[in-house]
Amino acid sequence: MKNQARFDLKEYMEEIREKVDSALDELLPPEDRFPQTLHKAMRYSVFSGGKRFRPILCVAAFEALGGKGEGILPAACAIELIHTYSLIHDDLPCMDDDDMRRGKPTSHKVFGEAVAVLAGDALLSLAVEILVKKLPYYVGCDVTTRVLDDLLEAIGSDGMVGGQVVDIMTQAEDATPEIIEYIHSRKTGCLITSSLRIGGIVANAEASLIERLSDFGRKVGLAFQIVDDILDAKGSFGDLKSGSQLDRKRGKPTYPAVFGLEESERIAKRLIDESKRILEPLGERGVVLKSLADLVINRKS
Amino acid sequence: MKNQARFDLKEYMEEIREKVDSALDELLPPEDRFPQTLHKAMRYSVFSGGKRFRPILCVAAFEALGGKGEGILPAACAIELIHTYSLIHDDLPCMDDDDMRRGKPTSHKVFGEAVAVLAGDALLSLAVEILVKKLPYYVGCDVTTRVLDDLLEAIGSDGMVGGQVVDIMTQAEDATPEIIEYIHSRKTGCLITSSLRIGGIVANAEASLIERLSDFGRKVGLAFQIVDDILDAKGSFGDLKSGSQLDRKRGKPTYPAVFGLEESERIAKRLIDESKRILEPLGERGVVLKSLADLVINRKS
Repeated sequence: MKNQARFDLKEYMEEIREKVDSALDELLPPEDRFPQTLHKAMRYSVFSGGKRFRPILCVAAFEALGGKGEGILPAACAIELIHTYSLIHDDLPCMDDDDMRRGKPTSHKVFGEAVAVLAGDALLSLAVEILVKKLPYYVGCDVTTRVLDDLLEAIGSDGMVGGQVVDIMTQAEDATPEIIEYIHSRKTGCLITSSLRIGGIVANAEASLIERLSDFGRKVGLAFQIVDDILDAKGSFGDLKSGSQLDRKRGKPTYPAVFGLEESERIAKRLIDESKRILEPLGERGVVLKSLADLVINRKS
Repeated sequence: MKNQARFDLKEYMEEIREKVDSALDELLPPEDRFPQTLHKAMRYSVFSGGKRFRPILCVAAFEALGGKGEGILPAACAIELIHTYSLIHDDLPCMDDDDMRRGKPTSHKVFGEAVAVLAGDALLSLAVEILVKKLPYYVGCDVTTRVLDDLLEAIGSDGMVGGQVVDIMTQAEDATPEIIEYIHSRKTGCLITSSLRIGGIVANAEASLIERLSDFGRKVGLAFQIVDDILDAKGSFGDLKSGSQLDRKRGKPTYPAVFGLEESERIAKRLIDESKRILEPLGERGVVLKSLADLVINRKS
């Protein structure tokens, strides 16, 4: 299979997923280490069926810009841990109040709110610790601090956390197109963009190429969240009985709520088309990233 | 005043406090930056009357081990931000459920639970971001990653967060001396020890001296928390009407609950005596740190 001429995206993603999962398994404290409840909670959310989309983007950007070997894995894992921390906190009763995620009870439903908050805190700390402990071995301390700088800026009060604050504080009726773009670009877009940029930084790519990854990431990240909104909206229209998704999204600022479903689909499609054009100058090297962009618009869940 | 022969500890502490506060003011995003509620919440808790004990320990350790200049300030500020993040999360209804801290309403009482969780998250991210952005300028990237490694290990699932998990999951009647020492050494001790070690690392001190700071910190940190418990216990015995402190500590594993008040006072005193002996080989250079250790046992609030 591996030697077939046509590039197999599914196989490529599965390979990265396996490597990332096995690295995460090594990097996370074992479940039987004291305090066991905390370590169980950390592992429960990390291994609950995530698609590893951000690590895959990170590795794909790394390889597209000439990176080789395992040096990108600590970064890919750290990014997934940060994504997981943000989901645990977003699901809390005081935030989105979600009981289920990916078909499984959310962390606070299983371990209680206090442990869920602390498991999120511990995952954020662990992500940074992994970068600091593992990355210098591959790329030295200078590049490690550049990676950290990029990542921490992406997830702070001007990035991911800022987006989440505006999201919970904005009701649908107050959402302007500017607000909704702020929320989506920060809450989802910043970490996706940083995943790509970090791939470029670890590959030691030149600044102009890393900027290109940023532009690509901004569009893909925004499209990703719009598609999320569209899938949620369709799910709730199609299944009014369960109500949970509708309740959850009722009053929430989303693209379909502001622009309508059809226009939202058009915007997402246009963003993906634009994102792919940004990678044109990369030629063959941009093929995988472009295919991943197509996946965003074609995904069904 | 500054030229008097006798060293003035109060003045020394006040000087550091002012420097740290003014650096924090520069490093924190302004309140009028969008999203304002988040940035207000971050500043509210950072500037709510903290004694800056950890930054003072950090700077004192730095100077005791030969460090000079402003290079220690980013680390001292990062440590205070991490301390603040941990307090905001500890005060949440799902944790210790505290309405007041240092005579002011806690973050979630003012801004709501969601913003409080996210303000804590943002402060943790900002602490790392500050270290990564500012510290290399003074000490290079190698020392910066050593500082980060020390700090992140201290606050993760095997450190501060681990201590908090065990604290909230342990009832007084289940608390053994081993459990209570685990809680206190992790929940409070790890960050205090790391504050001292980081002072030594930034001063580029030799490993044996940094180990000495660790031993000193472990004892001072444990004593600090025992004194906290003693003050809480005395406060609640003396003021039964208000009830809040008693309620809060009822069922909580504390030293007075396990060992009784008098024995707890003896343990704290012994720890401080031992901690000062550890610094004997430092001679004159250890005087400030030893005075700070004495403060721990003599404090009234």
